Amino acid sequence: MQIWRVNVKTQTFTKEPVPPSWEKLGGRGLLARIMLDEVPPDCYPLGPRNKLIFAPGLLVGHMISSTDRISIGGKSPLTGGIKEANAGGRTGLHLATMGVKALIIEDAPAGNELWVLHLSLGGAKWEKAEGLTGLGVYDTAQKLVERYGEKVAISLIGPGGEMKMLSAGIQNIDKDKIPSRIAARGGLGAVMASKGLKAIVFDNAGGQKPPIHDPEGFKSAQKEFTTALMNHPQTAIYRDYGTVAMAQMCQGFGGLPTRNFSSGVFEQVDSIGAEAMRDLLLRRGGESNTTHACMAGCTIRCSNIFGGEDGKSIVSPLEFETVGLMGSNLGIDSLDVIARMNWEVNDLGVDSIEAGAALGVACDAGLMQFGDGARALELLHEMRQGTPLGRILGGGAAMVGKVYGIERVPVAKGQAMSAYEPRAIKGIGVTFATSPQGADHTCGQTIRAKINHLDPKPQKAASLGAQLNMAGYDTLGACIFSAFGYAIVPAVVPALVKARYGWDVPADYLQQLGRETIKMEREWNKQAGFTKKDDRLPEYMTREPLPPHNAVFDISEEDLDTIYDNL
Amino acid sequence: MQIWRVNVKTQTFTKEPVPPSWEKLGGRGLLARIMLDEVPPDCYPLGPRNKLIFAPGLLVGHMISSTDRISIGGKSPLTGGIKEANAGGRTGLHLATMGVKALIIEDAPAGNELWVLHLSLGGAKWEKAEGLTGLGVYDTAQKLVERYGEKVAISLIGPGGEMKMLSAGIQNIDKDKIPSRIAARGGLGAVMASKGLKAIVFDNAGGQKPPIHDPEGFKSAQKEFTTALMNHPQTAIYRDYGTVAMAQMCQGFGGLPTRNFSSGVFEQVDSIGAEAMRDLLLRRGGESNTTHACMAGCTIRCSNIFGGEDGKSIVSPLEFETVGLMGSNLGIDSLDVIARMNWEVNDLGVDSIEAGAALGVACDAGLMQFGDGARALELLHEMRQGTPLGRILGGGAAMVGKVYGIERVPVAKGQAMSAYEPRAIKGIGVTFATSPQGADHTCGQTIRAKINHLDPKPQKAASLGAQLNMAGYDTLGACIFSAFGYAIVPAVVPALVKARYGWDVPADYLQQLGRETIKMEREWNKQAGFTKKDDRLPEYMTREPLPPHNAVFDISEEDLDTIYDNL
Repeated sequence: MQIWRVNVKTQTFTKEPVPPSWEKLGGRGLLARIMLDEVPPDCYPLGPRNKLIFAPGLLVGHMISSTDRISIGGKSPLTGGIKEANAGGRTGLHLATMGVKALIIEDAPAGNELWVLHLSLGGAKWEKAEGLTGLGVYDTAQKLVERYGEKVAISLIGPGGEMKMLSAGIQNIDKDKIPSRIAARGGLGAVMASKGLKAIVFDNAGGQKPPIHDPEGFKSAQKEFTTALMNHPQTAIYRDYGTVAMAQMCQGFGGLPTRNFSSGVFEQVDSIGAEAMRDLLLRRGGESNTTHACMAGCTIRCSNIFGGEDGKSIVSPLEFETVGLMGSNLGIDSLDVIARMNWEVNDLGVDSIEAGAALGVACDAGLMQFGDGARALELLHEMRQGTPLGRILGGGAAMVGKVYGIERVPVAKGQAMSAYEPRAIKGIGVTFATSPQGADHTCGQTIRAKINHLDPKPQKAASLGAQLNMAGYDTLGACIFSAFGYAIVPAVVPALVKARYGWDVPADYLQQLGRETIKMEREWNKQAGFTKKDDRLPEYMTREPLPPHNAVFDISEEDLDTIYDNL
Repeated sequence: MQIWRVNVKTQTFTKEPVPPSWEKLGGRGLLARIMLDEVPPDCYPLGPRNKLIFAPGLLVGHMISSTDRISIGGKSPLTGGIKEANAGGRTGLHLATMGVKALIIEDAPAGNELWVLHLSLGGAKWEKAEGLTGLGVYDTAQKLVERYGEKVAISLIGPGGEMKMLSAGIQNIDKDKIPSRIAARGGLGAVMASKGLKAIVFDNAGGQKPPIHDPEGFKSAQKEFTTALMNHPQTAIYRDYGTVAMAQMCQGFGGLPTRNFSSGVFEQVDSIGAEAMRDLLLRRGGESNTTHACMAGCTIRCSNIFGGEDGKSIVSPLEFETVGLMGSNLGIDSLDVIARMNWEVNDLGVDSIEAGAALGVACDAGLMQFGDGARALELLHEMRQGTPLGRILGGGAAMVGKVYGIERVPVAKGQAMSAYEPRAIKGIGVTFATSPQGADHTCGQTIRAKINHLDPKPQKAASLGAQLNMAGYDTLGACIFSAFGYAIVPAVVPALVKARYGWDVPADYLQQLGRETIKMEREWNKQAGFTKKDDRLPEYMTREPLPPHNAVFDISEEDLDTIYDNL
């Protein structure tokens, strides 16, 4: 494998050997290592000293189910801390098959022009993004596929990124060439814009699957994993319902964010929940489907196509986080409206979680009434136009709160919470507070833990376990849902790594990767000026009781401050 | 003396004895003590756990020249750190003559109404701010003087504070009842709004000068100080020219902020400098005057009334910081335009430094052309209307930079720099970087130090000396310019304190107060999560050379990190 390095100022491209200390890492863990080695923690996130890094996980390249994700990272302009955001789609697979362990994009362009960077085994080509600047990601991706062929992978930004909005992510096309696999969180789309890049096209022609040390062992471990995953009851639920199956579960715990995180129960949950969506999609037919896969080889197939009355796709996929943040959190009970909002933010290349949370705060600021879907769509239109109001919203929930003097802003480290109320599901609150990444459910989900989610005592351990696992999966390139399989047959993780690389790794290799990764991330954040004061939820959550349980977030500061003590 | 405590939720008022550990402090030092004792550093600045504190300096109450200032403080919503902003005018004198060592305003109101709080020896009265809400400070102050009489002191906020803009300050009426003595910096106007207060009226009827331990000694020390001050050549210059005398001096060092801190030289400096202003004011006559005093007894009289062609006042005073930030920093070379802009921000109750810096960044964001005064006035009108654009600008320079993705943002700890380029006058750059207050020239001015301002070596010591002195003066209630006198006869400081209180204090008492104050402020900030990474100037200033000297800010991080080591 190689390190590919691109300098956007000189438009030069080099291939380098992998430094020894990077060899045994991939994905999120490798990003942390590269950040520590190369990116000054005090750099301006949109300036020349920050870097934008793409790293497929360690197991990427073999179409193991749900295990071909791409990690993208750099210093977050939203949190000011280290950032890894990962996505499905084709990008991870393409990089791995080109033999790229990490792509490092550095420096800052001389001018303000945007470019398309074309990477292949033959090297780098630069083309001006003429005719693409200002376009949404759907049109942009289509034009790029027309120009560069059906087989390429593409990472790209939309108008949100071009405007350097702090909620902008980096979209990736999926196996069906739909550009909605977003490395959403933390404003990496703005970082990509600051590097002068509208899109990166990955053409893996001539590439091949990464070499496998022990093909038989690999096949056997992969089969064991796939079987476990397919037999897990949750896989079937996600295959039937998509991730929105989570809505009723959250509501059941009194933890479905509702009306800007002021209640944990949404009266109209049945209108936006799993059964409602499935019924709608089955009834509408046409392009609508209940689920399909975003990556070749995925057996979970949690993705859906949400079609309108005419059967034509409105958006794909419509996921639970979006339903939570743009539905219950805004008091909106129409899946059609939520789907249209989702398409808008996808096309803008903006994180739907951050945008939904920003709109929630905007409701409290009087810019919109809860439940007013038409106004919500208008506000997203402001974002597209780049009006001052649109830019405030595009800056994310924390920015809306700062501009309008609103205290109820559901963020940690400046990043919006996903659709889990931390006062009702306190373990994920611990994750939101302490993760080096800021509030993010994919950094340590505890909702399935067999604990009382309202009891403050077991949450530290539950969150830590989940955080280590997730940092491990993110380093392997495995989707959060792949855990349904890996957790049942945990020995396949070391077995797959042993078969792929020949490394003898311990039984708790997944957690070891997680520990190493989080340690590096925390060290980087510390150098950036983070302290334990950043490992907190907003003050109001500690004193404002949340219906229906009237719970506050009462995890002790000691628990928050000591969670990583024995890493 | 007493502590007066107001709870805005219960609308209760209590008078308390002064705790022993508060007795020997006043002004800025006392604020720091109270903050450490009572305000949780992690509180939401606009929420119930923050407090708004008024504390006259130790020597306030006796009309010693330039030594009746009021310190106002709390947690800054702009910097997230401790904040003291002081002002001239009547407020300090009135509090001192009512026997108030500190007024502490706490909790948060139940509703959104704004109130006028009337404080006198008879207690507290609450009146709804009917007919005042939304009014500028000039109209508000006039109505309040009509209602409460000519003799009261008033602290009040304008529409900027009401909108909780992070650049909003707290205005105070001066001896001529003009409400333009603003405790400007750090967003304390937003804190006052969050306490539900449009204005506080201080009626000192029945009050008296604070007792003096040794009246003869006091008179003699006061006389020695006044003579020294009056004989200082700078006093005469300020009396003739006002503070704008600084413009040519800054330009001479290549350190006059120009076009959003991209040059240290403004080609049209002669149009906005001291001679130009004096000539204009003398020519126009009418209400125009070159200088007068803001506080009874001040012999410097640096304040002016800037009159228009018709001789009627446009604004009073027009000061150097405003001329720098709204003149050269915006490429605007018309004193009339600058004066009208100054009136606007005064009336909004907004810090002219922060507003000028915000407009400078707005120029780089393409919202205005440098030199376009009409557009600048339009943008201030947006602030008054509370449009999204106006709110972005009202959020200050850092917010404009975040919303528009602009790197060149001249702030430290989130607060805009005053009108001194830290790459050309590096000592003040050290102050900007390291002061617990954020960038603020009144925290440690080095421009008069006899050093090479471009040489990085002597700046740490120069800044530290100035910072200690200023923290001392701010604790005494002395204006920055009073140092022209105190520095010549330093023994009068301990003499005045000994005569006033009977305390035996050391010869370096001023610096001792400064050390104690800064230590407490840094401790509070540390508890709020500040680290040495917050003691930095923006990265671009360390790598982007500033004309005409093409200097960068090259003070070593070691110097910045060790400046307070021996406090």
